[in-house]
Amino acid sequence: MTGAGLGRVHTQRVVLFSRADPLVLESGARLAPVEVAYETYGTLDNDAGNAVFVLHALTGDAHAAGHHGDPDRPGWWDNLIGPRRPLDTERFFVICPNLLGGCQGTTGPTSIDPETGRPYGLSFPLFTVRDLTRVHRRLLAHLGIRRVAVAIGGSLGGMQALQWALDHPREVGGAALICATARLTAQNIAFSAVARAAIMEDPEFAGGRYLEHGRSPRVGLATARKLAHITYLSEESMRRKFARARRDGGPGMTLATDFEVEHYLEHQGNSFLRRFDALSYLYLTRVMDYFDPLADPTLDLAAVDTRFLLISFDTDWRFATKHSLHLARELRAGGVDVEHFEVRSPWGHDSFLLEVPEYHRRVAAFVDGAAGGARRAPARETQTSSVSNAM
Amino acid sequence: MTGAGLGRVHTQRVVLFSRADPLVLESGARLAPVEVAYETYGTLDNDAGNAVFVLHALTGDAHAAGHHGDPDRPGWWDNLIGPRRPLDTERFFVICPNLLGGCQGTTGPTSIDPETGRPYGLSFPLFTVRDLTRVHRRLLAHLGIRRVAVAIGGSLGGMQALQWALDHPREVGGAALICATARLTAQNIAFSAVARAAIMEDPEFAGGRYLEHGRSPRVGLATARKLAHITYLSEESMRRKFARARRDGGPGMTLATDFEVEHYLEHQGNSFLRRFDALSYLYLTRVMDYFDPLADPTLDLAAVDTRFLLISFDTDWRFATKHSLHLARELRAGGVDVEHFEVRSPWGHDSFLLEVPEYHRRVAAFVDGAAGGARRAPARETQTSSVSNAM
Repeated sequence: MTGAGLGRVHTQRVVLFSRADPLVLESGARLAPVEVAYETYGTLDNDAGNAVFVLHALTGDAHAAGHHGDPDRPGWWDNLIGPRRPLDTERFFVICPNLLGGCQGTTGPTSIDPETGRPYGLSFPLFTVRDLTRVHRRLLAHLGIRRVAVAIGGSLGGMQALQWALDHPREVGGAALICATARLTAQNIAFSAVARAAIMEDPEFAGGRYLEHGRSPRVGLATARKLAHITYLSEESMRRKFARARRDGGPGMTLATDFEVEHYLEHQGNSFLRRFDALSYLYLTRVMDYFDPLADPTLDLAAVDTRFLLISFDTDWRFATKHSLHLARELRAGGVDVEHFEVRSPWGHDSFLLEVPEYHRRVAAFVDGAAGGARRAPARETQTSSVSNAM
Repeated sequence: MTGAGLGRVHTQRVVLFSRADPLVLESGARLAPVEVAYETYGTLDNDAGNAVFVLHALTGDAHAAGHHGDPDRPGWWDNLIGPRRPLDTERFFVICPNLLGGCQGTTGPTSIDPETGRPYGLSFPLFTVRDLTRVHRRLLAHLGIRRVAVAIGGSLGGMQALQWALDHPREVGGAALICATARLTAQNIAFSAVARAAIMEDPEFAGGRYLEHGRSPRVGLATARKLAHITYLSEESMRRKFARARRDGGPGMTLATDFEVEHYLEHQGNSFLRRFDALSYLYLTRVMDYFDPLADPTLDLAAVDTRFLLISFDTDWRFATKHSLHLARELRAGGVDVEHFEVRSPWGHDSFLLEVPEYHRRVAAFVDGAAGGARRAPARETQTSSVSNAM
């Protein structure tokens, strides 16, 4: 990471779909209102040609970079986004919304259903990755942008970039997919299925009506998070971080938390309860299970002129390199321009959140190329830097 | 599998430790009575030289071979044990007990604590793999046997064979460890930690007193089993068995069970509830976490003249080949006679339960060699065949 970050930034909210103009989902279901939380960093060019759209992963949010008051708690992709970082906010206008179905500002199953005055719960309609991109496209239109120079995301974020580029290649100059996949394996689905069952079978889930009863499926959601977390780390990174160390290290045995890896997972589970919701977890994992855009009979790869960058990490076993290889092969067979790099990193799937030099270099080069020599933004403070200075 | 199996067999029970002669655990805790359920197949030689001791894995039981009435439901290692099978019951006297801490006939945390008249629950003492072998050795003495030709087990079963041979090499001619380990990794511990937490935090666990209240931590135990099951299968075997198939295959999406892999896991979870107990699951997974015999400062490999066979499977990621390689290297560095074979099998950790030809050939050859030309048993019906004929 070079140079100072963005400083203080703010989340904005906008109602993008109303009852008069609802979001029509791929299933045919209608949803309104749909409010979206998002952040932007940098300044939009006069010709709106320098937009970079950041798509978050399963449990991410709109707060990708800068900070909300505490510089030691930056956004989740702060190492990638900012002045002179790979997504250079002195050059690009970076947009990051919270996903439909999420729980961090965008309409989701914990939102109030206007038909009932109660939280949607399980009556929130199921949706697809294509539906996620429908909302993104509306946000883009709201911002007066017709085309993004680059859409970029890791994991589920990359899946959205893929769907968007396949459906609307003219809207996406370049699609950067970091440790993503075009199709979950049975094992991928299995892990999510165990997590979802742990949530739904937790008696505190109360058929999805827990919010109304002041309850929360804490055990199920913590189980889900801990389980997922194991798949985000490589075995090697767990070995490096924890080995077989025990916190107290005495000779005795206990069924209670003892090994450092157990303390770590417990912490991950508990802190997740403070920031994420069980229903969003159900919906957003399920959207991944059903994702299979290359099997879409209407897919016309010959029309796809978006350039693709695929990055995978050698120790990622959540969406291992073979997922990217499969996708690259399929896209190339259809004549699509694809670069794929397997980057060495010991940190598994989580590598996409970390400052792995080769990965960041590849992203910077791709964004630079996909921008097609987009003009540098005017030599003045960026929007977000101004905000920071005004603190 | 060649030839007919053992036919009908019976589980026997024996009290091996009494209040006057309790089991003194490695922790110093005393436990009595300790009853052990076990089965034997074949006939013991006059010089008691043809014993093969079978050690079961985490959720196994004493019923390793033959059947209890329904020939279509044979014991868990029936393909390995029987007339003219790798553990040839026309030649060997095969013994298989249920483990201490188990729930299938041997004393464990669901047994009645004579001090209170109630099930032990969490007051059952924690124990080690060495404690498991203490009980095995007592059973052996009860049967009038001083030395086994071979001790053999898969996974936790192999860990017991290892501990036994390291502690008492003169009692174990050959130790056959199938997809075992000398030390769990942080990732291995992590999976078990998530499973245990799901059980203990299930409100139905009731602090381990669920039996007295007619309750059961079904959600937690099913979660534990499903999670573990994912680690027993390779990604490749899940792909072969399930791919992305859906049972109904309609165009709609659902949060309910839909993909075949989900149905499979749900079935695995539910059927496990009928045969296994949550407390035993806690204790028997924990015994694995703490197992680390090569770190024992009293270990004297120079004294170990047991021959070792290590088998690992190329797609096993629960205890991958590197676990066996590590153990082989450590044992050889101490001068121990070790053969290690990585066997190709698409079925992951579960391969040890399956009839993988190379694996069975290696076991047969090892047992034959370790028996040192043990005399063939007299040419008469084996004990178990007699039982079968008497039906």
